[in-house]
Amino acid sequence: MISFEEALTKIFEVRLPAINFEKINFITGLQRVLAENILFDMDMPPFDKSAMDGYACRKQDIFTEMEVIELIPAGKFPEKAIIKGQCSKIMTGAPIPTGADCVIMVEHTEELPDHKIKFLKDSTKTNITFKASDAKKGELVISKGTLIKPQHIAVLATTGYPEILVYKKPTIGIFSTGDELVEPHLKPEPSQIRNSNAYQLLSQVKTLGIDAVYYGIVKDQPELLYNMISKSISENDITILTGGVSMGDYDYVPKIFDQLGLHTLFDRIAIQPGRPSTFAINGSGKFCFGLPGNPVSSFLQFELLIKPLIYRFMGHIYEPKNLFLPLGADFERKKSEKLSLIPVKFNDKSEVFPVEYHGSGHINALIGADGVIFIPKGLTNLSKGDLVNVRQI
Amino acid sequence: MISFEEALTKIFEVRLPAINFEKINFITGLQRVLAENILFDMDMPPFDKSAMDGYACRKQDIFTEMEVIELIPAGKFPEKAIIKGQCSKIMTGAPIPTGADCVIMVEHTEELPDHKIKFLKDSTKTNITFKASDAKKGELVISKGTLIKPQHIAVLATTGYPEILVYKKPTIGIFSTGDELVEPHLKPEPSQIRNSNAYQLLSQVKTLGIDAVYYGIVKDQPELLYNMISKSISENDITILTGGVSMGDYDYVPKIFDQLGLHTLFDRIAIQPGRPSTFAINGSGKFCFGLPGNPVSSFLQFELLIKPLIYRFMGHIYEPKNLFLPLGADFERKKSEKLSLIPVKFNDKSEVFPVEYHGSGHINALIGADGVIFIPKGLTNLSKGDLVNVRQI
Repeated sequence: MISFEEALTKIFEVRLPAINFEKINFITGLQRVLAENILFDMDMPPFDKSAMDGYACRKQDIFTEMEVIELIPAGKFPEKAIIKGQCSKIMTGAPIPTGADCVIMVEHTEELPDHKIKFLKDSTKTNITFKASDAKKGELVISKGTLIKPQHIAVLATTGYPEILVYKKPTIGIFSTGDELVEPHLKPEPSQIRNSNAYQLLSQVKTLGIDAVYYGIVKDQPELLYNMISKSISENDITILTGGVSMGDYDYVPKIFDQLGLHTLFDRIAIQPGRPSTFAINGSGKFCFGLPGNPVSSFLQFELLIKPLIYRFMGHIYEPKNLFLPLGADFERKKSEKLSLIPVKFNDKSEVFPVEYHGSGHINALIGADGVIFIPKGLTNLSKGDLVNVRQI
Repeated sequence: MISFEEALTKIFEVRLPAINFEKINFITGLQRVLAENILFDMDMPPFDKSAMDGYACRKQDIFTEMEVIELIPAGKFPEKAIIKGQCSKIMTGAPIPTGADCVIMVEHTEELPDHKIKFLKDSTKTNITFKASDAKKGELVISKGTLIKPQHIAVLATTGYPEILVYKKPTIGIFSTGDELVEPHLKPEPSQIRNSNAYQLLSQVKTLGIDAVYYGIVKDQPELLYNMISKSISENDITILTGGVSMGDYDYVPKIFDQLGLHTLFDRIAIQPGRPSTFAINGSGKFCFGLPGNPVSSFLQFELLIKPLIYRFMGHIYEPKNLFLPLGADFERKKSEKLSLIPVKFNDKSEVFPVEYHGSGHINALIGADGVIFIPKGLTNLSKGDLVNVRQI
């Protein structure tokens, strides 16, 4: 049995097969990972630009009436330079005319007859955004390995990357194992339950922008399991199955991993829930996870262990920042031999409260949870106000 | 000019048109909002169930050798009842046989010849998950109005809702305005910049699972703007445009809203960035947002104001919990007339640090930000350690 930290290290250090790239339209780039650095192809802003609608003039002139010599809309270069006693009306985003060193905002001006203007108020600001003040041509703005969010799309548009190089997504196969499982549209017989884990996992993968292949429910029979694991491994980069990894007589998965020549990197983690989580690799760099059959275990071990591996395939180092928030009530547990994950809710002061949680089979335990907290090995008691390590879910 | 809180109240209280529903396969339910309550159709678990691989027996017998009378796999009902001196080998998830009141885990047992077994260790736990201990048949598990995440998909599978009733998504039209804009694949002339806002907004909408319609760049000409706003309003529930809402000579949008018979609910908010954000509605319940042309303003006002309206259309009350985290350094600003939004990063102790931020036009300001903090009106100075209100982005 290894610690959770050791298991995570294996996920981050295991050798991946050669990673592939593809060129895509930047508009479809959300949730993809950049395989190239993005540089500014021009200064930002590319010219001295007005930050206001107003009048561009010389600061030293602002207490005299001034003649308005030009109207400068955004998108057009000024035709006239400003000299003493002159100003140009200028729109937000338009280039500053030569000779002007400030913009007085329109709200602080009064129009007079004959294209004259007077200023009602001085301004301490220039209201000019100077050329290259945000970034210089050639400057790195988004690094290779960045997971693309909407704010990156804006930068890709601005920097002129209508096509971007991204890492290919891994292919993922998912199935559930267990004689007790039936599909959701069926009414279970007594002793049966409906298959929930596979659909939860398909959805978890979908939140990463990946459509996994679903292979159904596999009965607890060694040949069927052997064939399905073999098929999924041959067809996908990563296989995720649930059930069949514990100590029962019908838990054939570990043995079949051996028969298939998979090298098991871990099969027990000192964590609750999720202890029998199993991770194996074959000689061609195909990965297989065996997750426990309980829905809370399966959900959390996907979040903690599988997500980082999927992101590694996509060229991204996934290290979500855990939050440190205060407990809203005392917490106590009986045993402390393992790292425990406890589902919690936050109130509107960001205080953390455990939600009702009966254990790893408690199907609706995560419904109202905002996250899980990590209770380290050896710790049984925590007090209201103690900062706890929270992973948002 | 109204406060941000007043603007938000208008978003939450404005009357929506009739909301529509549709039935969908639950597997496609991610990011949709339930339009029905979800109830358990059976007790959970539906039978007394073993939480372990082990031996089911009578607690009072565990210090004697016992005869193993049956093997009970998951998915099968036991055929034999347990009496004194007997036990049945049982797998995780399998039904507990009549007469047994505990399960001893397999790791704490030793097999003897002739189907006998002895227990090496007592257990304080029963290792039985009792029928209906997680939920009772008929119990409400997910409420109407819930935004569906992977953990809900697991519950929908378990409770037997292969089809679910959800709210329809609103249709959304997006365009940018401004003579200075060119599309990302073009090299801007001097005085021009590339259109970034529309693509950022399309992506922000996409993160909600909605494909908006993009109508391109509209020049600063009243007829063109009139026609495009009119077209987008007739074709969509919500129209979002950027630019043209400020005080400039070419900012035609407010006037066109009037000409189109739109009722403007607000056009100035005491917030920085995003002051000229405009929100209008017509008599048929069509909505139109005019956002400032700067990318940081546009991004943040979408997050703060438009997202809640989109979710209202989808039947969901969007009230993300702001986090309260400590500042990692002193903070100071010169003016305090408005509520300010400042982009920040968290370190791994959840301390908050402002990122480099030159103002609402700073295209790459949000690239490295984990969130924004709200600095209330009237406040100029904050000290390291003060708790600040953080919205994650």
